[in-house]
Amino acid sequence: MLTTKTESKKRTKSSQQRWEENLLKSFIEMVKAPNGDFPALNKLSIAARDKGSFQLMIEHLSTAPEAQAAFESFLSMGAIDLDELSELPANTLGYLFAEHMRRNQFNVMVAKQVPDIYHFVLTHIYETHDIWHVIIGADTSFYGEAQIDAFSAAQFKMSRFFHSLVAKNIVKAATYDVEAATPYMDAITKGWVTGRQAKLLFGVDWREWWATPIDEVRDAFHIVGV
Amino acid sequence: MLTTKTESKKRTKSSQQRWEENLLKSFIEMVKAPNGDFPALNKLSIAARDKGSFQLMIEHLSTAPEAQAAFESFLSMGAIDLDELSELPANTLGYLFAEHMRRNQFNVMVAKQVPDIYHFVLTHIYETHDIWHVIIGADTSFYGEAQIDAFSAAQFKMSRFFHSLVAKNIVKAATYDVEAATPYMDAITKGWVTGRQAKLLFGVDWREWWATPIDEVRDAFHIVGV
Repeated sequence: MLTTKTESKKRTKSSQQRWEENLLKSFIEMVKAPNGDFPALNKLSIAARDKGSFQLMIEHLSTAPEAQAAFESFLSMGAIDLDELSELPANTLGYLFAEHMRRNQFNVMVAKQVPDIYHFVLTHIYETHDIWHVIIGADTSFYGEAQIDAFSAAQFKMSRFFHSLVAKNIVKAATYDVEAATPYMDAITKGWVTGRQAKLLFGVDWREWWATPIDEVRDAFHIVGV
Repeated sequence: MLTTKTESKKRTKSSQQRWEENLLKSFIEMVKAPNGDFPALNKLSIAARDKGSFQLMIEHLSTAPEAQAAFESFLSMGAIDLDELSELPANTLGYLFAEHMRRNQFNVMVAKQVPDIYHFVLTHIYETHDIWHVIIGADTSFYGEAQIDAFSAAQFKMSRFFHSLVAKNIVKAATYDVEAATPYMDAITKGWVTGRQAKLLFGVDWREWWATPIDEVRDAFHIVGV
């Protein structure tokens, strides 16, 4: 009986170690991949998933009433009509979001129905990522992405994925382009500080905010230093 | 002739790639090593060395007159007498440094003569690291070390080593202890912001500052938020 227990413990430990090794392997692959390599990003995202940290993240996010409600309803932004948003006044969240999408030639993703909370979180992040870009004033340059990685890490707190992305930017600069390390760290610091001071953005139904001037949106969510 | 040139180019590129691979390998070894593992730290420090970034770092540091003078004289702190420093008033840099060393049971290192600017930089960093700890108010906990890693990265700017150390702390937390990621990022952000705002501390002869109250030292070097 004792032997069995010990063996079982050994197996558990070894499976944990394999999981960690795989995360570090995916991390280094992401460092080596060119910026904007989605297969590497996807692989890192999968490698960074585990029940423990996901549960901790849900508990943390649930402290915000909007997130709690979104978890219950599996909130979706639905089909966003950029033409309609473009008709809003020029300083509104909706107008600026439409402009951001057009300038970057991004398409609006219409999310499918999600089967569980896990897929809801992933889908919500994907649906709102570019809205967050506009709200925190991060462009889509490499530095702007590093800024939003750090903002997201601060907001989600327990996300192995976003923290790995933050570190990826630093290791990439340290290894391949040391002169870029300072602007990366400046962007990361800016995103982190903003993310820590802001109210939680997760689970907010941004359709209710499209017509609000961006300054009022930022005030409402304590987004400072933009 | 053309063939030879191409081959030589290929060789150069491949040696560069090998260098990058080795830096990333040492980085991951450092992530996997327990905190405070000096052989792993030393290996990373060696792997992070290259003429190009070292030259950029010297050029950057040379903008400070103290650093420029230190490069010419190979400034050394000599033998620091902690008993003597302990007799200074309680709020002085010297007194607080002696207290810091005693509390952590650290020995004062007396540096050997250095043969070149490269060894001078390493030795000066080593000689002054704990003085920097006191000046920026970073303790010797894992978070305090992450704070000073980020402060050092901000001050040295082109250091692959310090930027790698900053990232190491984040990857370690993301992989092994995600709940520690937020305090690590807070410490890193604090160190980075302080390091960016401060005057360059490199090359300062701290013996001239031992008797100065710590608040005055911090004012003189624009160390804020301690």
